[in-house]
Amino acid sequence: MGTAGAVLFLVLSCLTVQCFSKYEPNWKSLDSRPLPAWYDEGKVGIFIHWGVFSVPGFGTEWFWYYWKGYKDPAFVKFMKDNYKPDFTYADFAPMFHAEFYSPGQWADIFKAAGASYVVLVTKHHEGFTSWPSKYSFNWNAQDVGPNRDLVGDLANAIRSKTDIKFGVYHSMFEWFNPLFMRDQANGFRTQDFVKAKTIPELHELVNKYKPDIVWSDGEWMASDDYWTSKEFIAWLYNDSPVKDTVIVNDRWGNNTRCKHGGFWDCSDHYTPGKLVPHKWENCMSVDKNSWGYRRNAQLSELHTIEELIEQLVTTVSLGGNFLINVGPTAYGEIAPLYEERLRQMGSWLGVNGEAIYKTHVWTHQNDSIAHNVWYTSKSNSSQVPTVYAILLSWPQNNTIHLGDPIASDETKVSLVGYPGYFDFECSPSSGMVIKVPAIPVSRMPCDWAWVLRLTYLQNYKTKINPDAYSDHVEPIPMMKEPFV
Amino acid sequence: MGTAGAVLFLVLSCLTVQCFSKYEPNWKSLDSRPLPAWYDEGKVGIFIHWGVFSVPGFGTEWFWYYWKGYKDPAFVKFMKDNYKPDFTYADFAPMFHAEFYSPGQWADIFKAAGASYVVLVTKHHEGFTSWPSKYSFNWNAQDVGPNRDLVGDLANAIRSKTDIKFGVYHSMFEWFNPLFMRDQANGFRTQDFVKAKTIPELHELVNKYKPDIVWSDGEWMASDDYWTSKEFIAWLYNDSPVKDTVIVNDRWGNNTRCKHGGFWDCSDHYTPGKLVPHKWENCMSVDKNSWGYRRNAQLSELHTIEELIEQLVTTVSLGGNFLINVGPTAYGEIAPLYEERLRQMGSWLGVNGEAIYKTHVWTHQNDSIAHNVWYTSKSNSSQVPTVYAILLSWPQNNTIHLGDPIASDETKVSLVGYPGYFDFECSPSSGMVIKVPAIPVSRMPCDWAWVLRLTYLQNYKTKINPDAYSDHVEPIPMMKEPFV
Amino acid sequence: MGTAGAVLFLVLSCLTVQCFSKYEPNWKSLDSRPLPAWYDEGKVGIFIHWGVFSVPGFGTEWFWYYWKGYKDPAFVKFMKDNYKPDFTYADFAPMFHAEFYSPGQWADIFKAAGASYVVLVTKHHEGFTSWPSKYSFNWNAQDVGPNRDLVGDLANAIRSKTDIKFGVYHSMFEWFNPLFMRDQANGFRTQDFVKAKTIPELHELVNKYKPDIVWSDGEWMASDDYWTSKEFIAWLYNDSPVKDTVIVNDRWGNNTRCKHGGFWDCSDHYTPGKLVPHKWENCMSVDKNSWGYRRNAQLSELHTIEELIEQLVTTVSLGGNFLINVGPTAYGEIAPLYEERLRQMGSWLGVNGEAIYKTHVWTHQNDSIAHNVWYTSKSNSSQVPTVYAILLSWPQNNTIHLGDPIASDETKVSLVGYPGYFDFECSPSSGMVIKVPAIPVSRMPCDWAWVLRLTYLQNYKTKINPDAYSDHVEPIPMMKEPFV
Amino acid sequence: MGTAGAVLFLVLSCLTVQCFSKYEPNWKSLDSRPLPAWYDEGKVGIFIHWGVFSVPGFGTEWFWYYWKGYKDPAFVKFMKDNYKPDFTYADFAPMFHAEFYSPGQWADIFKAAGASYVVLVTKHHEGFTSWPSKYSFNWNAQDVGPNRDLVGDLANAIRSKTDIKFGVYHSMFEWFNPLFMRDQANGFRTQDFVKAKTIPELHELVNKYKPDIVWSDGEWMASDDYWTSKEFIAWLYNDSPVKDTVIVNDRWGNNTRCKHGGFWDCSDHYTPGKLVPHKWENCMSVDKNSWGYRRNAQLSELHTIEELIEQLVTTVSLGGNFLINVGPTAYGEIAPLYEERLRQMGSWLGVNGEAIYKTHVWTHQNDSIAHNVWYTSKSNSSQVPTVYAILLSWPQNNTIHLGDPIASDETKVSLVGYPGYFDFECSPSSGMVIKVPAIPVSRMPCDWAWVLRLTYLQNYKTKINPDAYSDHVEPIPMMKEPFV
Repeated sequence: MGTAGAVLFLVLSCLTVQCFSKYEPNWKSLDSRPLPAWYDEGKVGIFIHWGVFSVPGFGTEWFWYYWKGYKDPAFVKFMKDNYKPDFTYADFAPMFHAEFYSPGQWADIFKAAGASYVVLVTKHHEGFTSWPSKYSFNWNAQDVGPNRDLVGDLANAIRSKTDIKFGVYHSMFEWFNPLFMRDQANGFRTQDFVKAKTIPELHELVNKYKPDIVWSDGEWMASDDYWTSKEFIAWLYNDSPVKDTVIVNDRWGNNTRCKHGGFWDCSDHYTPGKLVPHKWENCMSVDKNSWGYRRNAQLSELHTIEELIEQLVTTVSLGGNFLINVGPTAYGEIAPLYEERLRQMGSWLGVNGEAIYKTHVWTHQNDSIAHNVWYTSKSNSSQVPTVYAILLSWPQNNTIHLGDPIASDETKVSLVGYPGYFDFECSPSSGMVIKVPAIPVSRMPCDWAWVLRLTYLQNYKTKINPDAYSDHVEPIPMMKEPFV
Repeated sequence: MGTAGAVLFLVLSCLTVQCFSKYEPNWKSLDSRPLPAWYDEGKVGIFIHWGVFSVPGFGTEWFWYYWKGYKDPAFVKFMKDNYKPDFTYADFAPMFHAEFYSPGQWADIFKAAGASYVVLVTKHHEGFTSWPSKYSFNWNAQDVGPNRDLVGDLANAIRSKTDIKFGVYHSMFEWFNPLFMRDQANGFRTQDFVKAKTIPELHELVNKYKPDIVWSDGEWMASDDYWTSKEFIAWLYNDSPVKDTVIVNDRWGNNTRCKHGGFWDCSDHYTPGKLVPHKWENCMSVDKNSWGYRRNAQLSELHTIEELIEQLVTTVSLGGNFLINVGPTAYGEIAPLYEERLRQMGSWLGVNGEAIYKTHVWTHQNDSIAHNVWYTSKSNSSQVPTVYAILLSWPQNNTIHLGDPIASDETKVSLVGYPGYFDFECSPSSGMVIKVPAIPVSRMPCDWAWVLRLTYLQNYKTKINPDAYSDHVEPIPMMKEPFV
Repeated sequence: MGTAGAVLFLVLSCLTVQCFSKYEPNWKSLDSRPLPAWYDEGKVGIFIHWGVFSVPGFGTEWFWYYWKGYKDPAFVKFMKDNYKPDFTYADFAPMFHAEFYSPGQWADIFKAAGASYVVLVTKHHEGFTSWPSKYSFNWNAQDVGPNRDLVGDLANAIRSKTDIKFGVYHSMFEWFNPLFMRDQANGFRTQDFVKAKTIPELHELVNKYKPDIVWSDGEWMASDDYWTSKEFIAWLYNDSPVKDTVIVNDRWGNNTRCKHGGFWDCSDHYTPGKLVPHKWENCMSVDKNSWGYRRNAQLSELHTIEELIEQLVTTVSLGGNFLINVGPTAYGEIAPLYEERLRQMGSWLGVNGEAIYKTHVWTHQNDSIAHNVWYTSKSNSSQVPTVYAILLSWPQNNTIHLGDPIASDETKVSLVGYPGYFDFECSPSSGMVIKVPAIPVSRMPCDWAWVLRLTYLQNYKTKINPDAYSDHVEPIPMMKEPFV
Repeated sequence: MGTAGAVLFLVLSCLTVQCFSKYEPNWKSLDSRPLPAWYDEGKVGIFIHWGVFSVPGFGTEWFWYYWKGYKDPAFVKFMKDNYKPDFTYADFAPMFHAEFYSPGQWADIFKAAGASYVVLVTKHHEGFTSWPSKYSFNWNAQDVGPNRDLVGDLANAIRSKTDIKFGVYHSMFEWFNPLFMRDQANGFRTQDFVKAKTIPELHELVNKYKPDIVWSDGEWMASDDYWTSKEFIAWLYNDSPVKDTVIVNDRWGNNTRCKHGGFWDCSDHYTPGKLVPHKWENCMSVDKNSWGYRRNAQLSELHTIEELIEQLVTTVSLGGNFLINVGPTAYGEIAPLYEERLRQMGSWLGVNGEAIYKTHVWTHQNDSIAHNVWYTSKSNSSQVPTVYAILLSWPQNNTIHLGDPIASDETKVSLVGYPGYFDFECSPSSGMVIKVPAIPVSRMPCDWAWVLRLTYLQNYKTKINPDAYSDHVEPIPMMKEPFV
């Protein structure tokens, strides 16, 4: 082929295949990309905060900043009491041994937890990369401490042992990186840090580990222009090796949260309290006070399984995904209490998963009469149209009045995981009154929340128009969020 | 008073007060001492294994011996992989920081667990004394590592915050103490180690901390004569500051277990499987594989609360005390999973304690017809004569046939923690058939085992003659005991 | 002054002062800059190799490369014997305590050594910056280890306590920096490393510490084009805060040694063995095997003071400067043996400095008849024209025949540091025969080398034409140079 | 031989050889034992202070006591600045790596130093035994830190490579051993510490390593009765494996120094300043301020070789032995400066040893006219009667007037290490006036002190009557002795 032919070929191929499908580096274009379906269908993810902060394991994964930034007295005292005076944060790194790190074991736990995806912190605000980044010489897990590619090893284990999707958390800024601090001092008119670190790292992460999620954070100090986020996402969507499958969140600049990107995280522990016209995620931690491991966490500071399941249920009912965080120890273990919470969640999902995975929000989110009842639904043409009423507490008196479902002649009511059907009658006022038999504890399908399966309701239709939201949404308990 | 008078006074006081009450250093005399009542009444104790072995936190508290004695490949590999070649066991000691050790917090947990007594390992076979012993220079918690009197601080906290009794575990031998090894090489014809270490330490412990229990261990290699155990106990019973209240176990020589001393421990995880004519104790650990903290313990290696309550119930039904062990971390925390187990046990005892504390064995221990039903009883003249049938599993079909209780006209059946009485009828064959209503899970008094309170049975009488035992005792599941 | 005036002024000042004097980024222009006089006059400098390599203190400051690059068995074994298997080089950094670092004390020692300048290693090939560089986050002496600006503290101490010039050694490349390795893999067609590290660091060093010397190294793998060395030096000479006083060496690319730059270092331990037409420097180390501190150095591996003075004398006689290296310990001490060598050199210079400082090469470098006799000279118009004959060994038989000096009638011969004049006679063949009295050891001016001061020789003239070199130069003993 | 014969033999041998020669545990008897000749003949020993104190390497080997006993501000500050608050002294032990310890290399150095014996600190007041003592569990060099028998390895190396005698320093007391502190609190009426530690350790040391010297220390707080020293020495002299060859010093109780035992040490850095009627030893350290290694020692705080040779010469002239101390590093090196001092001493002894080894004191110790001249002598019947005049400074004016020697007709004067004889004449007033030629420095036999060999003097006789001492003894410079 001659030169002219080659040019023609390029123009044509561009016209037919690529050019019109290319996303442009502006939000209108980027936001127009549909979310890959797996994310909304999966509902449940595991978040993993692991880094040098796991070594002191004190207070929070923001340890460095509380100590040296805020100079919080509790952190200053902790260091004064337990370390030599000129101990530095980087001095902790060699103590990050990860000697018991068994990614296969982690994968097994995540699978048992019923997770559809995992989001691993690959670099937190401390700047320590858990993979051997070219852009973080001697401040990464291969060069100091674990002497190992923590990211790659987990990605491999998860992909070889499970169907779980693998995502990477990445902090755009670094508290104390002098290049960032200089850009900041320059009013973000310089971008040395972005060019030397943020963007090269993101490219490296994507090219090396082909993540299913790029979960961005640490963006709030500067705009998406400073971070060149739009350009990065355009590359990610157009040209990266994961262009068709990847999904991102919304933390790409101080002007993007709850507005742009893929799914919305909005804030940590986010729950909108009502339907919102966009896919969102509630990320929260088993530890009420920290995302990273705290060596001195007390039981009362950790969420009970009841609290976690409540969060899971309310989140999914409201259209969100639930990303539940555990912080492994510096020696590489998911501590038994955390393992227990994950396995408890998994055992619950093992029974009740049909009310969670691949469900849609219903026209109502929580019941207008019965307390602590939340709805999800399924109504694909190939499915029996079903509404799930999830009872966070068991009815006291063998009967429950649900205000929102309207039974049809074909409607049947059953308890997920339990044989047979429950009697019910239509309420004269509204909804259905369901008779709940007194089931001996030994025959209950699960221990903490129970799902009534309502089929062929008159009003089974799944919510599809994001503009018409339920006005009746009870306030959702917000999780404690001490650290911004 | 002149000399003659003084002599006379001494003789008289001896005659009237002391001399005839003195125990002599032989087992016949020592075994004749009645057990202080608090011990049998208390039923539930907490065992705490904490020492230098908590630093590697690998395998077992027998770490040193597995590594250097047995040369177990897993332990040798662990050291090879993670430490420099000539690392010694004593090199671990400075890493025993105990920086989060909060004895008051521990006391709160033990109280919440429903414990009546605590037994703290003050010196394990490694020889490291958790108190500043005069006989363990630079190998004690004040001189190296924690820089603190771990024993005294816990004793004080427990005594100031709770009514829990405080006991001390003490190992007679030390694996690698050269004085012991020489005595051993001499066929225990020399007693240098006993004189330099074992006995002085025991005196020091007793005089300094006035323990309610002296829980001896590490005795099995030599006889009570070598250890001069009988002489020590005679002093303890006659002259020590705790002579009237203290209680000891049975590990005082290779000829004493299950034979002599105070209560019997016989072996670790001991359960006799039938009634035995002596007070005994079942000591076991939340961790199936270790008494000391294991940093890499998996959830599946830790007992569930169901298993623990089963052990508690069967132990008490068979006349034993239940000493449940937790291993704190090297930094001084009772890890959340352990805290949870203890608090779960305490919550169960909060409801069902009347069927445990201050109970006696009944004529039957477990039911002859119903599976997983165990009995305790109370029949003091001042009490309503009661037999407690403890159901480890909830009846499937709203009825349960107990083969052993014989109802009287006055007999009533109730569920501890639940209002009202249950109907029953006497079985034509034997025992009682009790109707158990289908209680909604939300109204169940507890989650894991349930107690039927049977009053005024015809055969309510508590077992008093130790020679007449039940022949019908189901085999009791023995806990895994990998380490002798 | 109005705007027009200001512009005019700038144009004029530019015309008269700056514009025409600006150096261009090519070697012809850069090499045309005259060396600031202080350097040649000063003759003696102290080199200081101090870094993370001082922590293992084994083998050489190339420790990392011998261990991980060459995989030299001795280094691999050292690590295997003394560290855990996955110990990394960066793990050493927190052990770099520098707790005894007293820059004022160092300055005192350097002054006592007779040094005119100091060259501190601010970053060796390991990449660790001894100052808090913006471009070496968490791999610098402020962020990890010493927690201190090692460079600034020494610069301040030297400048406040002495007249010694302060220079900085800086390695262009870094063995294991992944950015460098990628540029290298790209055949140095990319310059990411240079732009992200080398040049920003050099600017930072110069602007922050205003060094008198920029002593470049680690350049040999790539050309001056890759390093953008010419551009950097042009900035240094034209616009930097030290543009008029700074001096550089010749290590700026694989095509520059012994060719371009300021003074020439050519190779480590360089001595040309004859006159060369350019100012050069002999840098060598007290430790024959290492520039960095070796904890296990044996006395026999360290140069004697006799060897050092021989090197100093031969170097200066041949027109070089002598840069003698010491490697401080990781805790910040110049070990006593090194301090002794420096102070011995200083005591010798205290007596004989007139034959070293501010001298020129003579027409002859070492004597054509007498062994171990080296010449320097002074012949400024304001000075008595003098030739110094430096005797490395004392004449055995009270007489010495120097083959090269030609006495005049005014010629006098004296021993520096000793009163009076020595008799001599002109040799019939060539030179002078000098009678050297038998001086009691207690009256000798110094212990190791002695200087005959020859004034008003007929051939006193200092060498000025670099093209006319002595042909008679004895081979100079080369120092052992195991590490390139 | 039959039984009767054997008994008879034993009785006889007892009568003839042993029984009557037994020493009794009283000083009269013990002091009557003649010193083995090798000690006085050997003159020069090496003292080695090495222990856990070498790890901080700060201030002095009394580090622990200055820190925790005296609470000296400099030591308290050092710990506060460089260690975590609850760091204990025992925490230092694992940092005692001794990784470069090469006993063979040490032996070579000691041999090159001209030493006749070595005294190794096997246990200092810190109580840490450098051998695996049965009586110091986990506080010895095998169990913690070096993981090696430091004592045995040196004993073997010295014995296999040299003829040097091997001695052991042993501290009777231990600052902080609670058994000792309790005996002390009891006014030394109890002896628990002595029985548990001091005496068993001494027996162990002697039986295991068969030392040539038992160099006791740390005795001053209690009497020889408390320590049972007399009984120990009686055993040592009568029954130990070294009964015929061993020698002890005088530190055996607060009533024994300078009075009883073998040779006298009296005090550290002891020099009597005149003849004393007993063999004595001057132990001193290269470091003016410390016996243990100080990491931050400055050159000015270390003795010059001139000072050391002066001490050696004056000590031997006064009848003493010279025990010169070096403190190795925690990593097992005799630092180069110390090695240099030892080798310098050895090179001097290589030339001048005949004036030191196997010499006796002369009738005069230092000259009555000439300054800095000290005498030793040899006058065995098989030898040429010789007096050595050791000149600490070289005569300024080619002549020296010695006031005390009286020449005979046969008298010859020579310089040790130099050929030929020196002229002299008898002084009209007293002594001899010797002509000292102006020797070129290159032909001088040594660098620091010079020995005139005077044969066949009229008054050559060696001092034999300890009651007749020279009255003319110049005050001897006492070494700084900061630590008692």
